[in-house]
Amino acid sequence: MSILIGDQEYFKGIGKVAYEGPESDNPLAYRWYDENRIIAGKTMKEHLRFAVAYWHSFCGTGVDPFGGPTLFFPWDKKADAVARAKDKADAAFEFITKLGLPYYCFHDVDVVDYTNDVNANEGRLQELTAYLSEKQKASGTKLLWGTANLFSHHRYMNGAATNPDFNVVAHAGAQIKMAMDATIALGGENYVFWGGREGYMSLLNTNMKREQEHLAQMLKMAVSYGRANGFKGKFFIEPKPCEPTKHQYDFDAATVSGFLRQHDLLDDFSLNLEVNHATLAGHTFEHELQVAADAGILGSIDANRGDYQNGWDTDQFPIDLTEWTKSMLIILEAGGLQGGINFDAKVRRNSTDTEDLFHAHIGGVDTVARALVIADAIRTHGEYDKIRTDRYASFDSGKGSEFEKGALSLENLFELAAANGEPATLSGRQEYLENMINRFI
Amino acid sequence: MSILIGDQEYFKGIGKVAYEGPESDNPLAYRWYDENRIIAGKTMKEHLRFAVAYWHSFCGTGVDPFGGPTLFFPWDKKADAVARAKDKADAAFEFITKLGLPYYCFHDVDVVDYTNDVNANEGRLQELTAYLSEKQKASGTKLLWGTANLFSHHRYMNGAATNPDFNVVAHAGAQIKMAMDATIALGGENYVFWGGREGYMSLLNTNMKREQEHLAQMLKMAVSYGRANGFKGKFFIEPKPCEPTKHQYDFDAATVSGFLRQHDLLDDFSLNLEVNHATLAGHTFEHELQVAADAGILGSIDANRGDYQNGWDTDQFPIDLTEWTKSMLIILEAGGLQGGINFDAKVRRNSTDTEDLFHAHIGGVDTVARALVIADAIRTHGEYDKIRTDRYASFDSGKGSEFEKGALSLENLFELAAANGEPATLSGRQEYLENMINRFI
Amino acid sequence: MSILIGDQEYFKGIGKVAYEGPESDNPLAYRWYDENRIIAGKTMKEHLRFAVAYWHSFCGTGVDPFGGPTLFFPWDKKADAVARAKDKADAAFEFITKLGLPYYCFHDVDVVDYTNDVNANEGRLQELTAYLSEKQKASGTKLLWGTANLFSHHRYMNGAATNPDFNVVAHAGAQIKMAMDATIALGGENYVFWGGREGYMSLLNTNMKREQEHLAQMLKMAVSYGRANGFKGKFFIEPKPCEPTKHQYDFDAATVSGFLRQHDLLDDFSLNLEVNHATLAGHTFEHELQVAADAGILGSIDANRGDYQNGWDTDQFPIDLTEWTKSMLIILEAGGLQGGINFDAKVRRNSTDTEDLFHAHIGGVDTVARALVIADAIRTHGEYDKIRTDRYASFDSGKGSEFEKGALSLENLFELAAANGEPATLSGRQEYLENMINRFI
Amino acid sequence: MSILIGDQEYFKGIGKVAYEGPESDNPLAYRWYDENRIIAGKTMKEHLRFAVAYWHSFCGTGVDPFGGPTLFFPWDKKADAVARAKDKADAAFEFITKLGLPYYCFHDVDVVDYTNDVNANEGRLQELTAYLSEKQKASGTKLLWGTANLFSHHRYMNGAATNPDFNVVAHAGAQIKMAMDATIALGGENYVFWGGREGYMSLLNTNMKREQEHLAQMLKMAVSYGRANGFKGKFFIEPKPCEPTKHQYDFDAATVSGFLRQHDLLDDFSLNLEVNHATLAGHTFEHELQVAADAGILGSIDANRGDYQNGWDTDQFPIDLTEWTKSMLIILEAGGLQGGINFDAKVRRNSTDTEDLFHAHIGGVDTVARALVIADAIRTHGEYDKIRTDRYASFDSGKGSEFEKGALSLENLFELAAANGEPATLSGRQEYLENMINRFI
Repeated sequence: MSILIGDQEYFKGIGKVAYEGPESDNPLAYRWYDENRIIAGKTMKEHLRFAVAYWHSFCGTGVDPFGGPTLFFPWDKKADAVARAKDKADAAFEFITKLGLPYYCFHDVDVVDYTNDVNANEGRLQELTAYLSEKQKASGTKLLWGTANLFSHHRYMNGAATNPDFNVVAHAGAQIKMAMDATIALGGENYVFWGGREGYMSLLNTNMKREQEHLAQMLKMAVSYGRANGFKGKFFIEPKPCEPTKHQYDFDAATVSGFLRQHDLLDDFSLNLEVNHATLAGHTFEHELQVAADAGILGSIDANRGDYQNGWDTDQFPIDLTEWTKSMLIILEAGGLQGGINFDAKVRRNSTDTEDLFHAHIGGVDTVARALVIADAIRTHGEYDKIRTDRYASFDSGKGSEFEKGALSLENLFELAAANGEPATLSGRQEYLENMINRFI
Repeated sequence: MSILIGDQEYFKGIGKVAYEGPESDNPLAYRWYDENRIIAGKTMKEHLRFAVAYWHSFCGTGVDPFGGPTLFFPWDKKADAVARAKDKADAAFEFITKLGLPYYCFHDVDVVDYTNDVNANEGRLQELTAYLSEKQKASGTKLLWGTANLFSHHRYMNGAATNPDFNVVAHAGAQIKMAMDATIALGGENYVFWGGREGYMSLLNTNMKREQEHLAQMLKMAVSYGRANGFKGKFFIEPKPCEPTKHQYDFDAATVSGFLRQHDLLDDFSLNLEVNHATLAGHTFEHELQVAADAGILGSIDANRGDYQNGWDTDQFPIDLTEWTKSMLIILEAGGLQGGINFDAKVRRNSTDTEDLFHAHIGGVDTVARALVIADAIRTHGEYDKIRTDRYASFDSGKGSEFEKGALSLENLFELAAANGEPATLSGRQEYLENMINRFI
Repeated sequence: MSILIGDQEYFKGIGKVAYEGPESDNPLAYRWYDENRIIAGKTMKEHLRFAVAYWHSFCGTGVDPFGGPTLFFPWDKKADAVARAKDKADAAFEFITKLGLPYYCFHDVDVVDYTNDVNANEGRLQELTAYLSEKQKASGTKLLWGTANLFSHHRYMNGAATNPDFNVVAHAGAQIKMAMDATIALGGENYVFWGGREGYMSLLNTNMKREQEHLAQMLKMAVSYGRANGFKGKFFIEPKPCEPTKHQYDFDAATVSGFLRQHDLLDDFSLNLEVNHATLAGHTFEHELQVAADAGILGSIDANRGDYQNGWDTDQFPIDLTEWTKSMLIILEAGGLQGGINFDAKVRRNSTDTEDLFHAHIGGVDTVARALVIADAIRTHGEYDKIRTDRYASFDSGKGSEFEKGALSLENLFELAAANGEPATLSGRQEYLENMINRFI
Repeated sequence: MSILIGDQEYFKGIGKVAYEGPESDNPLAYRWYDENRIIAGKTMKEHLRFAVAYWHSFCGTGVDPFGGPTLFFPWDKKADAVARAKDKADAAFEFITKLGLPYYCFHDVDVVDYTNDVNANEGRLQELTAYLSEKQKASGTKLLWGTANLFSHHRYMNGAATNPDFNVVAHAGAQIKMAMDATIALGGENYVFWGGREGYMSLLNTNMKREQEHLAQMLKMAVSYGRANGFKGKFFIEPKPCEPTKHQYDFDAATVSGFLRQHDLLDDFSLNLEVNHATLAGHTFEHELQVAADAGILGSIDANRGDYQNGWDTDQFPIDLTEWTKSMLIILEAGGLQGGINFDAKVRRNSTDTEDLFHAHIGGVDTVARALVIADAIRTHGEYDKIRTDRYASFDSGKGSEFEKGALSLENLFELAAANGEPATLSGRQEYLENMINRFI
């Protein structure tokens, strides 16, 4: 029995991608992702919860700021928007099923093209929601999260929830409502906000404080609506420092964490962290993960990579084993992700063969899976954790412990320093720990 | 009567710098800084409260990572540390008085060299505090803020308040206590924390959460100590994203704002914002000012500039009229600074003439003063404020106002959007506003 | 008599922009650009030779990587490509004439949409060339340069002249031929190559040496063709380090200068330098101008600016007086530009009012014109040149002069150093010179 | 028999580092560097020619722009400069011998402290040259290259060969002469120029053309001197874009290549490429290697890495397997390096244990060695080279080949494009090739 509802096979000549082990020379097999392998008490599939991104893989045509489309999709040909959307859904589920990944993610307008008529849009989205629901049932694929695209339409050029014109804010709200309805109907586990236009092009025309208060207001309304309509999952905010605007309010994990705290939103919101967004903000991805973990808001991941020589969102597929091993160390220590790992990544616009999309995903999946294996081996070996723990031992008892508890004053510290004299010099042992990463790769 | 207590004139051949007006061709005069000129109801002197930085101007010898000293100070020759420190104080006060600026700022170890003996350091600092107190009285110069240098000594190589070794934390506390004692004794208006080593070189050896909690603990102890000892001023945190460490916890204004809120420190702490630190963090200086103003923590400024082609703290003197005009617009709108404007800037290491230090300060003072004049003219003209206010008018009444008050739901927004149809397109008028800046320069 | 050939007025309500002087409060007037004002022996118009860019102003619809069009042009509505192209030409000449600027610049596909049929494209371009020729005659507007767009069509996704497939290289050649024909027919003063896809997305699939040799080959063919067909002007190469590709071969002025020298192209080629491309390459614009001037290839300018916090080509209109004053100092010292100053700049996509395009150009024109006035005043004052010249006086005679002539050996230098001892320390006086810029603004 | 001439063991408790294979858990052993292993017809030792850098490892005390020394070397204690220098040499050779690496590199002032007296310096350097010569003989260690430090002394604050004062230029020449004498005497295989101050702090005070001509003049004098005194090796220029100056003339490989061509220096000079300098210039390291290889000037490597979040030269030890695998692919294809691989890298200033310096070097050696193994496996597998070669097949015969030979005109290309129609779309297969790298790691 086929999982295809439609009758066309879009990715002809490519079968189901299987695990074949590290020695395999088959570029269309997994070498590291063995979904049933147990790592630290859970299967790889449970640890990683990979998702395919609807937009890059089935909507992105290769357009860039200096060039038109390079990818001409067979599922993108029908004149009728709904029929076209169903073809795209067929292609998407064929692809996801062939890859054997458990989840997908979408924006409303990925699923079906919107018009300027709110009611018409609601009708279209509902029709596609029903269609996707059947595809999910037939294939076993699940929705990791849904979201509303509040950045592509020209009405959002000055912002969505932070638009200076309330009429636009109302449209943003309408779109969020519809996207949440769809997400709930499809059993979506989480709901995401990426504020691509929630920021400014110029401070000269911007009341930043008022705009940010509007953003908080919208988030509160979304929580109210979601909870009233049976949504049990997490809301995620996806930080990004800039692009498309000059400056986005959800700059990085620390900024969003502060914003959520200020507006009392920490119970319902966590972060959806993207590698390329971290690096655009001047952070490593590991840093952003650690900030989120420390604040209890380590939600989900948009897996990709940037280009350190190019200053924009290149959204390439992940391939850096070192970066992902460090990331997995943090994720494992934090007890795992609340969400999953979505490939917010696209093939290069000159990667125009059908196989390219498979190679890209397979490479990404294997990079992350292999990093999980390596990180687990490092943790199992034990020395890594021991070095980190021992380093802070002076706070586990005695005066250090009193300091942590707030029981000392500056005068006490002065007396201790005067009495104890110059402290011993303790190496940070950074090179030793860095070598340990490579030792386990 | 001379303001000099010592008998040597260090900056020979240079007299008091006076205001001569925009047409002056005298490079040793102010062309824009007329301290008694009234702008928006206050004198320029009151608006700007300029301070000279002790460290760059009287301690910085031109060393850089690839070269040794180029500046050989006449006040830095005596073998005895205290005698040498007094000579430096003489030079500093001669310079500040010749410039006619009202304030200075220092770290403890700028004032007098420290040893590894805490008690000896306390004695030295107290002796110099007494000396500086007399210099202040004689000259009328005031202390804008004091601070402790918790980053240069090798014991802080792994952090000060965030050091993994409690013995080092105790030394940090001891130094803060002494620096606060000196600041209070000298009538310092504020006290600053710059966390140059409060961060990490590698996440691999770091417990970020525990370190940040230690930092918060230390700040609370400083507040307790200060308030108990009569300090009425503001505590400032100075954000910087990196350098010398890979990553500093006080990354930028938003990060510190969130940290202060999390640890309930917003009442006592504001920000000391530095231009070059803003740009290293990927922000404009104006952005950082606005973030601080919106959070009610617009404290003080470290005036300088970076180099957009070089990725480190160049600490050059301010010369960018456009940047400072935009900054002054924000400062004026926020009702002014809580602190003042300290020149955390140094002459280039190949600027070795005595006059160079004067030219650098005069150029910086005039840039900021002229920006104040321009920003005031823009605000007085009125159109700038009007455009900004009118842009948000849809939230001042009706449904927009209800939205702001939290009286609407997502369903309401959906209905409004459906009923009202596609909103009109409203230009952001960015180029018009940018031209306005140049029109007033 | 109207300069309009078509009968529609596109920019209604806006008349001819005139010079009104620095005190004017009219945002639709020039405050500094007085085209007949004599500066250093030439009129402002002769010095600056401003050009309007066809693509940004009449083709750019506000699309960005995360959003669709925001600008819906009245001249872009007809179904027939040639008719639509003529409407656009009408709009362009109306705009340029209202601004009173002497030049324009275009890519082939700005002028008229291309198909995939080479012969059909030639026909279309010839028809529009005839139309533009009439518009030029009627208005007095001239063509500063023409070029071929070898980056937008999907066939160029792997490069144009550097494409690994010769069939694509042939198409690039065909397009260059047609664009040169049009440029020659319209009396274009120069011809430009911007190699937006001449680079690589990944070194892994690239033979860089062979690709660069192909590029040189194509440039030689273009020179042969141009000279054989009566083109007397300069060919320009426009450096850019990256975007859209990961790395472009025409990285910066020094790289292109080396490439031209290697392939013996320095006689026919100069540089078209863009501000935003300079800063993306890690240089100041002044630096790129100086490199070009020193190599005798200071051709033309694409005037705009980038955003120092955003790592892509923002192509904003110039407003930075300091940057342009420094640039004008170099241009004046070099004896002027071979070409002119084209505004390769676009209004922000949320600047949707008709006036915005005027404000943007007026602000850019006035910034550059004012910088010319300031730079000329600095040079006339004389001290700036004197300081620069005196600094190298030790090479004007004696041993220094012998060194310059190659008449000394390392042994000679050793003997001189040993004999003369430690040299005096000479200040670079950087702050003094920086203040001088602001003194004349 | 000990290789130590002095009688002190500095790195106590650490024996000779040996190859133990990938499975070894000994952090003081090589897991990949097996010096006698044959790869592509040569031993690993021959391929890689590793060198230890005298300056970072034996002179660098951990000073950074915000902090003093953290490393207090036992060999740096004697009052007499020459005696101290000999202790340092003992330590250096003990370390290099324990590591088992074949080469070292130095600046003149690393070897022995200089005074301001040229003749005294010559005497000191000659005494140490004799001492090092004995150490080399006793240990079998060789000198990969020598150089003169023309950036640390304050006399070079405005440049060395490019200083505006000829008296300073003479000192630079004197120092080069002495450093070349030492290099020749010690059998140094190459001689390096790193122009750390050959650039500008401000264009405002700089005659860039004249300074660059002076630089070329000095290089020519060095070649003449070297060749006349029996030096047969290569001269290397080490590109770096900035730091310590705002802009250095030897910006990157392409810039230096153009400069060498302009001044007819390509026969004697090649490049010494540094990873961290490549990334500061906005390039990948692989890019710089390819540029050098294509120009026939792929000289030597300064192996290290930067930090992509920090904008200065961090000089960390190499650990990135992907970066080095890509680099080794280029080096193997180019037929190898003319020079070797010097670790221009330093331990973090908080890595204060004796072992840290060993771990750092071992990690670096193993990273590079493992990358060589991987790159060789990829090349042996064959598909990588085949894909790259096949991609350009259309130029190997027919019209493409005629194009390469310069036998076609633009008219010919037009006719071919018109006749052949739209070319087929050919994927760049980037993701496939990227996966191939990880497949072999």
